[in-house]
Amino acid sequence: MKAISKANLDEVLRGMNISDISKATIRQCVNTAQELERVSGESFIHLEFGVPGIKASQFGVDMQKLALDAGIAAVYPPTAGIPEFKWNASAFIKAFVGIDIFPDCVVPTVGSMQGCFNLLMECSQLHEDRKAVIYISPGFPSHFLQAKILGLEARTFDIYDYRGDKLGPKLEELMADGKVCAMVYSNPNNPAWVNLTEGELKTIGELCTKYDVIALEDMAYLCMDFRSDRSKPFRPPFQPTVARYTDNYAIMISASKIFSYAGERVGLVAISQKLFHREYPKLKERYGLASFGDNFILTYIYVNTSGCSRSAQNAMSEMMEASVSGKYDFVAEMREYARRAHRSKEIFFSHGFSLVYDKDLDQDLSDGFFYTIGYKGLKGSELLYNLLRCGVCAITLTATRSEQQGIRVCVSMLNKDEDFIKLDERLGLFEGLIAEEGITTAE
Amino acid sequence: MKAISKANLDEVLRGMNISDISKATIRQCVNTAQELERVSGESFIHLEFGVPGIKASQFGVDMQKLALDAGIAAVYPPTAGIPEFKWNASAFIKAFVGIDIFPDCVVPTVGSMQGCFNLLMECSQLHEDRKAVIYISPGFPSHFLQAKILGLEARTFDIYDYRGDKLGPKLEELMADGKVCAMVYSNPNNPAWVNLTEGELKTIGELCTKYDVIALEDMAYLCMDFRSDRSKPFRPPFQPTVARYTDNYAIMISASKIFSYAGERVGLVAISQKLFHREYPKLKERYGLASFGDNFILTYIYVNTSGCSRSAQNAMSEMMEASVSGKYDFVAEMREYARRAHRSKEIFFSHGFSLVYDKDLDQDLSDGFFYTIGYKGLKGSELLYNLLRCGVCAITLTATRSEQQGIRVCVSMLNKDEDFIKLDERLGLFEGLIAEEGITTAE
Repeated sequence: MKAISKANLDEVLRGMNISDISKATIRQCVNTAQELERVSGESFIHLEFGVPGIKASQFGVDMQKLALDAGIAAVYPPTAGIPEFKWNASAFIKAFVGIDIFPDCVVPTVGSMQGCFNLLMECSQLHEDRKAVIYISPGFPSHFLQAKILGLEARTFDIYDYRGDKLGPKLEELMADGKVCAMVYSNPNNPAWVNLTEGELKTIGELCTKYDVIALEDMAYLCMDFRSDRSKPFRPPFQPTVARYTDNYAIMISASKIFSYAGERVGLVAISQKLFHREYPKLKERYGLASFGDNFILTYIYVNTSGCSRSAQNAMSEMMEASVSGKYDFVAEMREYARRAHRSKEIFFSHGFSLVYDKDLDQDLSDGFFYTIGYKGLKGSELLYNLLRCGVCAITLTATRSEQQGIRVCVSMLNKDEDFIKLDERLGLFEGLIAEEGITTAE
Repeated sequence: MKAISKANLDEVLRGMNISDISKATIRQCVNTAQELERVSGESFIHLEFGVPGIKASQFGVDMQKLALDAGIAAVYPPTAGIPEFKWNASAFIKAFVGIDIFPDCVVPTVGSMQGCFNLLMECSQLHEDRKAVIYISPGFPSHFLQAKILGLEARTFDIYDYRGDKLGPKLEELMADGKVCAMVYSNPNNPAWVNLTEGELKTIGELCTKYDVIALEDMAYLCMDFRSDRSKPFRPPFQPTVARYTDNYAIMISASKIFSYAGERVGLVAISQKLFHREYPKLKERYGLASFGDNFILTYIYVNTSGCSRSAQNAMSEMMEASVSGKYDFVAEMREYARRAHRSKEIFFSHGFSLVYDKDLDQDLSDGFFYTIGYKGLKGSELLYNLLRCGVCAITLTATRSEQQGIRVCVSMLNKDEDFIKLDERLGLFEGLIAEEGITTAE
């Protein structure tokens, strides 16, 4: 393709009401790319979407259809979840995370989005004066928006500057005033694909105990740190988790990525037994029920959606069972993302790009669903602006609350050989543009 | 069966931590009945559940399975809804409610519960100083709980005392201070099965316009006022609605009851075109988006659940299409509830019971999904207490915020001939108990 002119791009951005491209949301970037595709007649490389891009697990599809045939659509699902879902979730967590969660303490949710939204709401109502939430940045933009909707104070810091021994002091600084009720993070991290080490998780856990903060741990990308083989049920190495270091935790596991089941909106929340049964006077006073777990199910989830699709519960239950029994190797399926990441990173590198978040302490990052990339000190907004001119769409790191300069790359839409060939061509076009137009980089 | 002794019942209630039976929730009543079934060895008549009790529409089941086979489970659903859902919903609303809603202004939700929760949240964030919600009582207990979770002030009044000309002055009294953002009610009413008349809806609509209040109209029981035939698409009489009298409205339609599809958690919100596009400075400031509709979809629903099950959207879309095209007469299916109501009311009447809410102005109420019943001035708590002793479970009107004395009867679980025979026997036992133990009534 020929590079799109600045005038044309500016016009499209104006039409979309985007004044600062560095803050454009995923949806705004998608819309911009679609408009540019129309204007230029060229299809874009889409690196902005975080959609599965792999076929849904057949174990889930088959079971969901069986459940529908059995007539389950007519009856309200139990808000606490159907028993087999709870049992299979407990076994699944034992098999791949290596911790004990009682079936009673597992609740199906309409994706982890619902889990996180309702956990956040509940955590912010446990105490009169704790209305702040810590987020590890960069992060999933929707998580920040949840706090904004709920009127909570978001406290955040860029993990780039606080790895290892630096993490504890930073967290203590944020927790010290006793106003923090919860802490939200994804591990592996979206978008940086940083994996918190066991040592870092120990720090988080101990401080959550010390300051009575609840860790809300998002395992959207469970077992996708491919540097070690986590595919064998009940055998280490397990998914790292804060659960080994505190009782103040709830874990979120979504079927969207691990089972490529995003369409059916199903996930789960697993609450530590101690937290599940912990009684809060504020909850008792407000809702007549005291325990964290009872309120999560019967107060929050119940009046939010009356539970989660019954057939989707059957589907996820079956996919977990198949994974636990070894019939279905979901980790092997996900390795496809690592292959796409490796191949596309090589292409970026060959055109002078480099990783922004590049290490877990002394270890290179794993290949996975996302990575972050920069170009010779170019600002994230300029980088995205010029990539858009060359038919490549992404979101900036600024939009994920990172303080670093670069873009987030999601590999899920790189499906075919020709996508990689096209990426290579487009990045060549980009390199030429930078040279030709004398766009200044910090190099 | 033999009546359960007071001592036995008291012990069960103590074990359940129920100190005031008049305030027991549906779930608590279910648990009590289950325990009493265990203790007495007799199965109960369950009048407390509001579950469908009719098979799910095969149109939905078949389409949902087709969608799953087509691979939709892998891909996130559009938060605004799949296009065919939006189109079919628009046609369905035209066909049975008789109003024009643009497909753009329809959003699928995880049941009407999610619709109402998010509408309420949004309505309470439109203005700095409007944090009160009006509920028409009696009502659906979960609706009140939503306001409590969101920290909103609930203003309510018993419709029993404010029918017809009395409604306007009462609403003005509640709206006059300008602090009300929204008004929630179901029509037909759960549990009283009162149907607001066109005149009453006109009053509500005009006052919503005058005081800039948004009417959130729950049509869970769409077309179930069986006094007139509303089963013919595009032909009057249509479902009554406030939409004919104001632009300040959003309608909620759930698949749970009308299509007996409660298990899959799918419904819709239809927003008036004017409200959908209305811009609110407070929303713009907080979320960067100004319009009510954009925020409903991209802010609230998006970070609550990232939309609604894709296959369930296909199912509801198909059920709406089949209804519109006349292939599927959902109203005829629902008439089964009216038959059950008629037959069970006759049994209640023959044992000295009478309807509590009995008229829409000068008209007798329709038979339908619910009705309310009292016994010779007995207090609701005493009535339920003694019915439980006789193997009949329900909830009191107090639990639905009614000021009247009696119980709510849901007919959905009265499936078989023997259920009616058993109801007759149990009510006979109740009558004997009242006489024998000299339980005082107001008669």
